[in-house]
Amino acid sequence: MADAVCESLALIGVGLIGSSIARAAREFGAARRIAVMDASPQIVQRASELGIADLATQDHAQALAGADLVIVCTPVGACGAVAQTIAPHLQKGALVSDVGSVKGAVVAQMTPHLPEPARFIPAHPIAGTEFSGPDAGFATLFRNRWCILTPPENADAGAIEKLTEFWTRLGANVETMSVAHHDAVLALTSHLPHLIAYNIVGTADDFGDETRSEVIKFSASGFRDFTRIAASDPIMWRDIFLANKDAVLQMLGRFNEDLSALQRMIRRGDGEGLLEFFARTREIRRSIIEQGQDTAAPDFGRRAEGR
Amino acid sequence: MADAVCESLALIGVGLIGSSIARAAREFGAARRIAVMDASPQIVQRASELGIADLATQDHAQALAGADLVIVCTPVGACGAVAQTIAPHLQKGALVSDVGSVKGAVVAQMTPHLPEPARFIPAHPIAGTEFSGPDAGFATLFRNRWCILTPPENADAGAIEKLTEFWTRLGANVETMSVAHHDAVLALTSHLPHLIAYNIVGTADDFGDETRSEVIKFSASGFRDFTRIAASDPIMWRDIFLANKDAVLQMLGRFNEDLSALQRMIRRGDGEGLLEFFARTREIRRSIIEQGQDTAAPDFGRRAEGR
Repeated sequence: MADAVCESLALIGVGLIGSSIARAAREFGAARRIAVMDASPQIVQRASELGIADLATQDHAQALAGADLVIVCTPVGACGAVAQTIAPHLQKGALVSDVGSVKGAVVAQMTPHLPEPARFIPAHPIAGTEFSGPDAGFATLFRNRWCILTPPENADAGAIEKLTEFWTRLGANVETMSVAHHDAVLALTSHLPHLIAYNIVGTADDFGDETRSEVIKFSASGFRDFTRIAASDPIMWRDIFLANKDAVLQMLGRFNEDLSALQRMIRRGDGEGLLEFFARTREIRRSIIEQGQDTAAPDFGRRAEGR
Repeated sequence: MADAVCESLALIGVGLIGSSIARAAREFGAARRIAVMDASPQIVQRASELGIADLATQDHAQALAGADLVIVCTPVGACGAVAQTIAPHLQKGALVSDVGSVKGAVVAQMTPHLPEPARFIPAHPIAGTEFSGPDAGFATLFRNRWCILTPPENADAGAIEKLTEFWTRLGANVETMSVAHHDAVLALTSHLPHLIAYNIVGTADDFGDETRSEVIKFSASGFRDFTRIAASDPIMWRDIFLANKDAVLQMLGRFNEDLSALQRMIRRGDGEGLLEFFARTREIRRSIIEQGQDTAAPDFGRRAEGR
C-alpha cells in the first residue's frame, strides 16, 4: 500500500460524511492515525463502539493534538462556531478543510477565525445518501464521486496538492473551481432539486388522511423518487438553503418562469409545445448516462456503488 | 399451473407495457393464445423477432379474431381512434380494457365506440420504466405493483372478475376506484412529479453549454433522479397532461402556493420554519417504506424487482 497522505487526521463531526471519511481513510490508508470529535456524547459513544477511529472524543484539544489534516464535517450552519473553537488548538501548519455543500457562506464564516487562511482549502465531496449519523457511513461512499475544491486565491500550493491526494485516495475525482461558481452550479444541480422534492412531498402531506394514504400506496408512479430526496437530513438542508440563499432564489426564479410556461401549454392544450419540451429533456438524460454519472440499468448503478 | 384466465388475448400497441403484458401473460399462463397488433411495421417486425406472441400483425381484424380479452396499450391520445377502429372487429362478449394513466379522458373517448360498454373495464397498471418500445418490456414488470380498475357503474360483474384475475395472475395487486378519484390521486402521485421533473431538467438545459456540461457532471447531487423521471416517453406524457388537464392544473396550483411559502422562508431566513417543513416530509418517506412500496436499501428495492 502507498504511504499515508497524512500523519494524523482529525474529523470534527461524525455524521454520515465524517464517519464515511474515517472508514475510507482507514480502509485506503490515507491517514496513519484518525481522531474523531463530536459535540454529542451519544455520537462519540457510538463512534467508539463502531471502532471507526483511533480516538473518539468530545474534547477539541485532544482531537486536534498533532493533527496535520483537520476536516470540519458539521452542518454548514455550525462551521463558523466550530472554526472559532478549533482555532486555538490547531497545530502550526495544519491543513484545514470542510465538506459543506455551500462554499461562500462557509468561507465567510470560517476564514476570519483561522490562524493560517492560506492553508484552509474548502472542499465539497458530492456524495451522500438520505441516511444520517455515524452508523450510516461506509468506506466506499466517495468512490467515483466528485470532490470539488474551492481554494482561496492565495492558497498554499502544497496544501491543495495534499488535499487532492487525500480525496483521490478515498476514491473521489477532484475538481477545482471558484467559490461563486460552485455555489451557482450546486444551486441548480442539488439545492433546487431538493427544495422541489421537499415541496412536492409537503403538498401531498397537506391532503386529508385518506388521500395521503393513497399517495403513499401509489407512490411508485413517480412520487417515490421525490420522497427519497426529501428524506435527507433536515438540519443539513435548512443550513444549505439559508447559506446559499441568493443562488437558490435565483435558480428558483428561473424554475418558476419555466413552470409557468409549461402550465400555460397544458391550459391551452399545446400538445406540440409539450412534446418538443419533453423530447428535449430526454437528451439530457442520455448525456448523463454517456458521461458515466449514472447507468441505464434498472437499478441505476446503485448496485455497483458498494456498501 | 392454473388454467389460463383467457382463451385469446389481443394487445393493441406493443410498447413497454404491451410487450410486458405479452411476456407476462405467456410466462404466468394467463392466456392460451396471444396476438399483438401495432400500427408501425417496424414494431410488428420487432415483436415477431422477439417471439413474444403467437401472432404479430398490423391488421386489426386478424389480431382481434376470436379474442375474448382485448387490451389497448397505445398512448392515451390514440385511444379514441383505436376504439373506433377495433369496434367492428370485436367478438361478441369480448372484454375490452386499456392501460392508460388517465381514466376520465380514456372513458370519454372509447366508450361511445364500443358495442358492449358494460364489458369495457378501464385499467391502469402502475408500473413502468423510463424506457420505451417492445425491447424494453419484461415479464415481471407488474409484480407487486398496483393495477387500478375503474369499472363503469353498470359494469358486467363477470368482466370485472375476469380482469382482476388476469392482472393478479401477472403479479399485480388489484384495486378498484372511481374514474374521478383515480385521476385526482394520479395527478398528485404521478403527473405532477413528472411535470416538475421535466421542468427542472428543462431549466438546466436553458443554461449555456459550459454550465450544462457541469450540471451533467455533478448530477449525482440530486438532479440525476429528476432526469430519470424526465426521460420517460414524450408522446405518452404529452397525452397524459392534455387528457388530465384539470386535475393536473389544480395540483399544480397547490404546489405553487406551497413553493411560494418555502421561497418566502428562504428569503426571510426563517430557519425554524424550514426545519419544521423538512422534518415533516421525512415522515412521509418512512410511511412509504413501512407500507412496502420501497425499501430503505441503497438500491431502493430495484434489485428485487426482477428483469
